[in-house]
Amino acid sequence: MDLKSLIRHARGDEPADLLLRNGRVVNVLSGEIERASVALAGEFIVGLGDYPARAAIDLGGAFVAPGFIDAHVHIESALVPPAEFARAVVPRGTTTVITDPHEIANVLGLEGIRFMFESAKFGSLNMYVMASSCVPATAMATSGAALHGYDLFPLKSDPWVLGLAEVMNYHGVIGGDDAVLEKIGAFQDRVIDGHSPGLSGVGLQAYVAAGVQSDHESTSAEEALEKLRLGMMVMIREGSVARDLAALVPIVTPANQHRFCFCTDDCQPADLLSRGGIDHAVRSAIALGMDPVAAIRLATWNPAQHFRLHQRGAVTPGRRADLVVFDDLQAPRPRLVFRNGELMARDGRMAVPPRPPSRSLRSTINIAWDAVDFRVPADGSRARVIGVLPNRLVTEALIDEPLRGNGAALADPSRDLLKIAIVERHMASGAMGKGFVRGMGLSEGALASSVAHDHHNLIVVGADDESMMTAARRVGALHGGMVVASGERILGEVALPLGGLMSAEPVETVRTQVEAAVAAARALGSPLHDPFMAMSFLALEVIPALKLTDRGLVDVGRFEFVPLWVD
Amino acid sequence: MDLKSLIRHARGDEPADLLLRNGRVVNVLSGEIERASVALAGEFIVGLGDYPARAAIDLGGAFVAPGFIDAHVHIESALVPPAEFARAVVPRGTTTVITDPHEIANVLGLEGIRFMFESAKFGSLNMYVMASSCVPATAMATSGAALHGYDLFPLKSDPWVLGLAEVMNYHGVIGGDDAVLEKIGAFQDRVIDGHSPGLSGVGLQAYVAAGVQSDHESTSAEEALEKLRLGMMVMIREGSVARDLAALVPIVTPANQHRFCFCTDDCQPADLLSRGGIDHAVRSAIALGMDPVAAIRLATWNPAQHFRLHQRGAVTPGRRADLVVFDDLQAPRPRLVFRNGELMARDGRMAVPPRPPSRSLRSTINIAWDAVDFRVPADGSRARVIGVLPNRLVTEALIDEPLRGNGAALADPSRDLLKIAIVERHMASGAMGKGFVRGMGLSEGALASSVAHDHHNLIVVGADDESMMTAARRVGALHGGMVVASGERILGEVALPLGGLMSAEPVETVRTQVEAAVAAARALGSPLHDPFMAMSFLALEVIPALKLTDRGLVDVGRFEFVPLWVD
Repeated sequence: MDLKSLIRHARGDEPADLLLRNGRVVNVLSGEIERASVALAGEFIVGLGDYPARAAIDLGGAFVAPGFIDAHVHIESALVPPAEFARAVVPRGTTTVITDPHEIANVLGLEGIRFMFESAKFGSLNMYVMASSCVPATAMATSGAALHGYDLFPLKSDPWVLGLAEVMNYHGVIGGDDAVLEKIGAFQDRVIDGHSPGLSGVGLQAYVAAGVQSDHESTSAEEALEKLRLGMMVMIREGSVARDLAALVPIVTPANQHRFCFCTDDCQPADLLSRGGIDHAVRSAIALGMDPVAAIRLATWNPAQHFRLHQRGAVTPGRRADLVVFDDLQAPRPRLVFRNGELMARDGRMAVPPRPPSRSLRSTINIAWDAVDFRVPADGSRARVIGVLPNRLVTEALIDEPLRGNGAALADPSRDLLKIAIVERHMASGAMGKGFVRGMGLSEGALASSVAHDHHNLIVVGADDESMMTAARRVGALHGGMVVASGERILGEVALPLGGLMSAEPVETVRTQVEAAVAAARALGSPLHDPFMAMSFLALEVIPALKLTDRGLVDVGRFEFVPLWVD
Repeated sequence: MDLKSLIRHARGDEPADLLLRNGRVVNVLSGEIERASVALAGEFIVGLGDYPARAAIDLGGAFVAPGFIDAHVHIESALVPPAEFARAVVPRGTTTVITDPHEIANVLGLEGIRFMFESAKFGSLNMYVMASSCVPATAMATSGAALHGYDLFPLKSDPWVLGLAEVMNYHGVIGGDDAVLEKIGAFQDRVIDGHSPGLSGVGLQAYVAAGVQSDHESTSAEEALEKLRLGMMVMIREGSVARDLAALVPIVTPANQHRFCFCTDDCQPADLLSRGGIDHAVRSAIALGMDPVAAIRLATWNPAQHFRLHQRGAVTPGRRADLVVFDDLQAPRPRLVFRNGELMARDGRMAVPPRPPSRSLRSTINIAWDAVDFRVPADGSRARVIGVLPNRLVTEALIDEPLRGNGAALADPSRDLLKIAIVERHMASGAMGKGFVRGMGLSEGALASSVAHDHHNLIVVGADDESMMTAARRVGALHGGMVVASGERILGEVALPLGGLMSAEPVETVRTQVEAAVAAARALGSPLHDPFMAMSFLALEVIPALKLTDRGLVDVGRFEFVPLWVD
């Protein structure tokens, strides 16, 4: 709609397309609830009050608030591309997400990011992108792509790119690493998001001084307050695994509430569909005592301000008509959701037809199968073992004596000592890391997955080589996915052909498949709540203590490779 | 300072240039006062805490706050160019101003704006410019320049230009005027400031919908609240004439305090030097009961956010070191003022030498003197008379019978009926408007000035033609200024050779000159507090009821020219 037409609508000289009559508007600017009707025309809110309109909906006194904004989310964690992700979150009131596509970027680089844009295009959700700053996370694993400063520069001219995504390499920033500073320097005029769990003192000050403007990794009130005082926007994260809301909500006050917003970071399909995302965060914050208008402000105006989305985040004339309507201010559950003036969801269901499927991506499972051999030569007696801790991303660095047979070191399920392997899957280099793991708990069979943060090589954990090969091969045949196998049999699987990270199926289907695969893994003896989720972090070489990449075992604390055998 | 060096300083690996030790930092983000030292290096704040430093100042527990920001000011109203204006405001803690140079722009167009930039360059004050949107104010007067959309576009690429200045022509916006919308359209991605006194209801909604983001004309709580709720940043104005602070401070609450800031709009030298600008607003707000940290936030963080000055507005690492130090939180009077890390003022006096004088400007007093004739032919009996109201910008439309003699209509000081004339002074066209005025109160003599909003033609008010010519000629000889004359004698004068608006003298000298000229005018019988200020608005054809331009008498309500004689 052109400016002149917008003004005519706002004057009331042209009838609005839709009048949301008899509402109670949540005004995140004044902190008030106002009885008013809201007039929409084209993609805009044109005015508040009794406007002439071509159509009207009587809200019966329901609340009207701005659409929710997820300040930081990795869509790939939901195992579906943006169009399907939207089907999960839009009915719950999230109309805008700020996403860091660093999972797909680790596999496919700029092509992966473009795929995410394309899947979101003309969809039901505003998907803004932060340019992934840490692809790959380190040089200690083989990723499918690397994004250097000169790769990121062109993204700046995309109107949907808002800045530089979470700068996870805070050591690099503080240490003055040239490659990291090149990226930060290029985005000094934009938003630069941070990621600095536990960082404090002068290290944190250096990180902030470099231009990093937010953090979503605070897990304690003390940590969040230090970051807030130093100028960071504090993103309160409530995801599937990391749940920081209860610890952080108590520090939000009227004087500092402008410096907080909500994010989910990583959410599984089941959580998005059952519990919710940002809507869940809003309800949780209110339940913990936060003023409802303030909680809604954290989910709307504050992230809009942080990300400089000046057309969104409030119910005022001239802004984009991203709106949610709900009945209970103490526990908002949107029953109508508008995005850009269009009704996108009603009563928890999409009100628009699904988008046609995203374009297909080339297969990203490129493995030199001839080189894949899960046999571990028995070159020592005592081996380093990765110790899995339930519901933690950190691992223990253990030492144990594997079984031996035919010159090979073997798994021993009776002692919960399984084999683990990382098979390079991007460029069929034949690179493979092998080792042992405790805590996955399989009594037989194997799990394999192409989701293995952040490089997303093929990760396999198993009790015997045959099962491992069956599972690994099946992931290959699916062009990516999560598989449970025993011997020659496939016991469960989720195909993730989009980059080896995302499914081409509806999100509800993916949820069911994941639940079945998890059940199959648990049937094989794993005591973990979600063995695949746990497994996906065993290859992440930036989180302590002992991890495995396709290049070998990494002692994260010393940030160096270590041999499998101690002696 | 490059990023790497900044980080090294923030880490403490390089000593800071200066440590402000033992301070109490006003944290406008957390709403707290924190005991801390502040380390500066180059133009930046590098950290809070006990940093190694090459030099230190012990603050003895004094408060450290961000430098004050004036959200909207016409520097020309202080009758001095930016470098001198800075000498008045910087010692009082204003380190940044957002200025609309529309006075000089009405005289010299883009050349005038460039002159303002040049005067501010390398100075002690951050001067950001909003591109003047309403030059000329209307087509009913002859201005020295006109700025169309295509004149303003190139300004967008100047890093010191933040957006479009107060869109005073709100009728044009609401009515969909193409020329106004062209300018608004061009600045949709920037800040667009408003000016909409008394605008309400659907008219206001249309104005906001068009993209106008702020207003500084609210004079009542009700007016400000309506604008706030509709999405406008409310600028609380406390200038020399318009003083809205006492009316608006009571509506500021913890829930809405993020939507207010302070501005001065127009301040005379005497007020800036004696009373203060933004520092005065902060003290006044606190005296009226506002929380001091909140008041300081309105003067720092809030305008920085509104104008997207992401490097300013808070005392946090990596921001520009614009700082004020003061002892009394209940009545802040900055005793140290830093801008970009440099000590600019101490104890109310500049700590850096004055800048060399600004480059001279061509004379802008271009008058066809042969055509200047103050005689008013007696072509009727009853004449329209402009009625001056003390301390108001609006006038009354009166009717009276002038004295007559030799076929001419004459002034009659005994009835306070003086002659008024506007002489076109930009392009020597010979255009002249003539009429009568009541309320200026001269018993003899004349006043002339080249400051006459907004077109700034030569305005003359007097009791006889000889005095009027003497005063007018003297303004011409000065290349602009304010003059008091009687017969052939000059009784007082302020030379304003820079565009006919600003002096080339120090601001203290200008203040003295203005006070002497005002005293001279009052000695001639004027009862007005400031006869020159009152006179400068008699030619402003956008404020009711009856005004005079070089093209004739304007009935502002009907927005049309009217004849001098009623019958």
